[in-house]
Amino acid sequence: MRNCVVAQSGGPTSVINASVMGLLAKNNEVKFFDHVFGGLNGIEGILKEDFLNLSLLTEEEIEEVKHTPSAALGSCRYKLKNYEDSKEEYEKLFEIFKKHDIHAFFYAGGNDSQDTVRKLSAYAKERGHEVSFIGIPKTVDNDLEVIDHAPGFGSAARYIAVSVLESYLDSLVYTNNGVFITETMGRDAGWLAASGALATYKGRRCADIVLLPEVPFDEEKFLKRVEEVYKEKQHVYIVASEGVRLKDGSFLAATKAHAHDSFGHAQLGGAGNALKNIIQQSGITSRVKVLELSTLQRSAFHLASPVDVEEAFTLGGRALLLAKEGETGVVSILKRVSDAPYEVTYTKTEAKNIANHVKYMPLSMVTEDGMNITEEALAYFKPLVGELPTYRILHHYDALKK
Amino acid sequence: MRNCVVAQSGGPTSVINASVMGLLAKNNEVKFFDHVFGGLNGIEGILKEDFLNLSLLTEEEIEEVKHTPSAALGSCRYKLKNYEDSKEEYEKLFEIFKKHDIHAFFYAGGNDSQDTVRKLSAYAKERGHEVSFIGIPKTVDNDLEVIDHAPGFGSAARYIAVSVLESYLDSLVYTNNGVFITETMGRDAGWLAASGALATYKGRRCADIVLLPEVPFDEEKFLKRVEEVYKEKQHVYIVASEGVRLKDGSFLAATKAHAHDSFGHAQLGGAGNALKNIIQQSGITSRVKVLELSTLQRSAFHLASPVDVEEAFTLGGRALLLAKEGETGVVSILKRVSDAPYEVTYTKTEAKNIANHVKYMPLSMVTEDGMNITEEALAYFKPLVGELPTYRILHHYDALKK
Repeated sequence: MRNCVVAQSGGPTSVINASVMGLLAKNNEVKFFDHVFGGLNGIEGILKEDFLNLSLLTEEEIEEVKHTPSAALGSCRYKLKNYEDSKEEYEKLFEIFKKHDIHAFFYAGGNDSQDTVRKLSAYAKERGHEVSFIGIPKTVDNDLEVIDHAPGFGSAARYIAVSVLESYLDSLVYTNNGVFITETMGRDAGWLAASGALATYKGRRCADIVLLPEVPFDEEKFLKRVEEVYKEKQHVYIVASEGVRLKDGSFLAATKAHAHDSFGHAQLGGAGNALKNIIQQSGITSRVKVLELSTLQRSAFHLASPVDVEEAFTLGGRALLLAKEGETGVVSILKRVSDAPYEVTYTKTEAKNIANHVKYMPLSMVTEDGMNITEEALAYFKPLVGELPTYRILHHYDALKK
Repeated sequence: MRNCVVAQSGGPTSVINASVMGLLAKNNEVKFFDHVFGGLNGIEGILKEDFLNLSLLTEEEIEEVKHTPSAALGSCRYKLKNYEDSKEEYEKLFEIFKKHDIHAFFYAGGNDSQDTVRKLSAYAKERGHEVSFIGIPKTVDNDLEVIDHAPGFGSAARYIAVSVLESYLDSLVYTNNGVFITETMGRDAGWLAASGALATYKGRRCADIVLLPEVPFDEEKFLKRVEEVYKEKQHVYIVASEGVRLKDGSFLAATKAHAHDSFGHAQLGGAGNALKNIIQQSGITSRVKVLELSTLQRSAFHLASPVDVEEAFTLGGRALLLAKEGETGVVSILKRVSDAPYEVTYTKTEAKNIANHVKYMPLSMVTEDGMNITEEALAYFKPLVGELPTYRILHHYDALKK
């Protein structure tokens, strides 16, 4: 008997289930493992032998789960410690693998999960345990190194771009519209906020200002720009990452942060409201609205990017093949061959190359004033997000003027 | 020369442009008016003779505008005073109508706009001005009397139902998930919050608790229910209207309200955060997340309800026919013939029947404990919202248990 187990970790995305279903579908095709088990709530559930037998799913069910947001197997925020600090846990895990004839463990998650893959594969190699550990990348934040872009990002970026476009049109209906701020996820890296720059109306970008964690927030420069735009059109649209920081590295929203999660990350929220306060106190205008996109960014499957769904599915299938080829301690990844026509190739990288690293946005993608994204940089984002809706309003349609 | 003017007022919806395009398309068909003008920014722009000639739009452009959220002509929050307090304005308006050969004025808006229709039609009748005033109903809040449901509501309700479903799936991935609160619009009436009850997963309603402005908030009863549900499954999903009120009629979010709009309505926001504070202070759990759907409820055309779009379009066309038939001081409305199969008829009502009235949710639609919607009541909402996506997660799929 040769079985494997797959589990999900960290914040859900719209396509993390597509990855698990891709793996299952590939095994149904190549029949390398007798059963594909799903571990509930990540490594937490595996330690409790909380398994589902995914090989019982019908083709129709696989299709349904593939097109479902959230983590179908449940998730966890549990970071595996080093072997020295957690011997019992490591030993228990390998006992469980032995008991259930598990020869491979697939972990779909971000850089913390790939750290688990790295640690367990190193331990197994040392002890001669014949269990493969393979990572499947996932994160809406797109902050994973080596891989061109993380599965989950394209769908979140699509949700943000469409929401920016639609809320932009809504925000300019009055004669004096004030300032509209949309706050996106992205604690460390600005990829999600940057994707707000994809929204355009009649060739003009909706977002006048895009604020990223990578560019230290300069209040004076920011207010000057807000005032300029406001004077020109009595309307300013801002997209801001939750992770906007000051020069000293502290979060703009820091005064509103109350807690840290179990990985020691500051729990954020509130950059938008912090900016609102700054603008209102400056006296530019008191009309400032804030939209926090919150968890819908990562769960709004109805706006999932088809490219993202299919890539996530393929990366899951490729992870299975990596185990079949005897690999361990690696992550199934993709590299971009070209932007247009969009083309990728699938390959692998050592888990250590992804574990605990963060891929920031390169400053070459940012405009000189630090408050928007260059037009050239958008070529990176466009194929991941797909076509946006085409809308037409009339109040600036001069050809109709009577 | 016989022209007409159409304008939009109040908060935008996903389908208020469909109504204007329905009117234009009907005139292109019956050719009753030589030109259909669009007044920019509601009555504000008309007083400034700020017109577009909508009859110049091509069929393709009409289709595009029909499928665009926001107010394509711009909007205003300007409430026309009584004639006695504003003689000059009334006289100026009729001078402008005369100057541009305008024989009908169509106003798409909520109960404040229908009050404008009522006032101007009464004034015109008294003075013998041959100008028709016809209302086209619109409001995401669904709080208009007489009409079965307001155009704009179905699309907002659809956005809310899908967002509740997707954020619900996202909110239950951990072993202890705490409380998730989604705050909807609906200052006076609970229709929008109630539509959150449409979201179901595997036949079970996602929302454990739905809080409406119509049912006075009882903190003790509320906390008891939250605790019960939390004890049962370590997860509580709450949908709350921004207009949740205490027994004395004051808003739960009142301490956070900073302003009043120009109609004297309290500017809300914060019912969700108020509930979060109440739950956290009760000691039930500190894990409470709040999602404020904000303006996306009324502008997310990508999730517009097809029924809503077509009804809004038809109501616009019917408004034109009412003017052609010599009506004035009336509103183009629809009545429901049956829920299933869903069928409506189009008719009219006096503007005074809608102006300044508010249609609350009947308490017969609310469960006995006042904290959810009855199953029977959902028959009213379902045809307006349409089918929701079908998703499948696995962590409660017992047939797969190993």
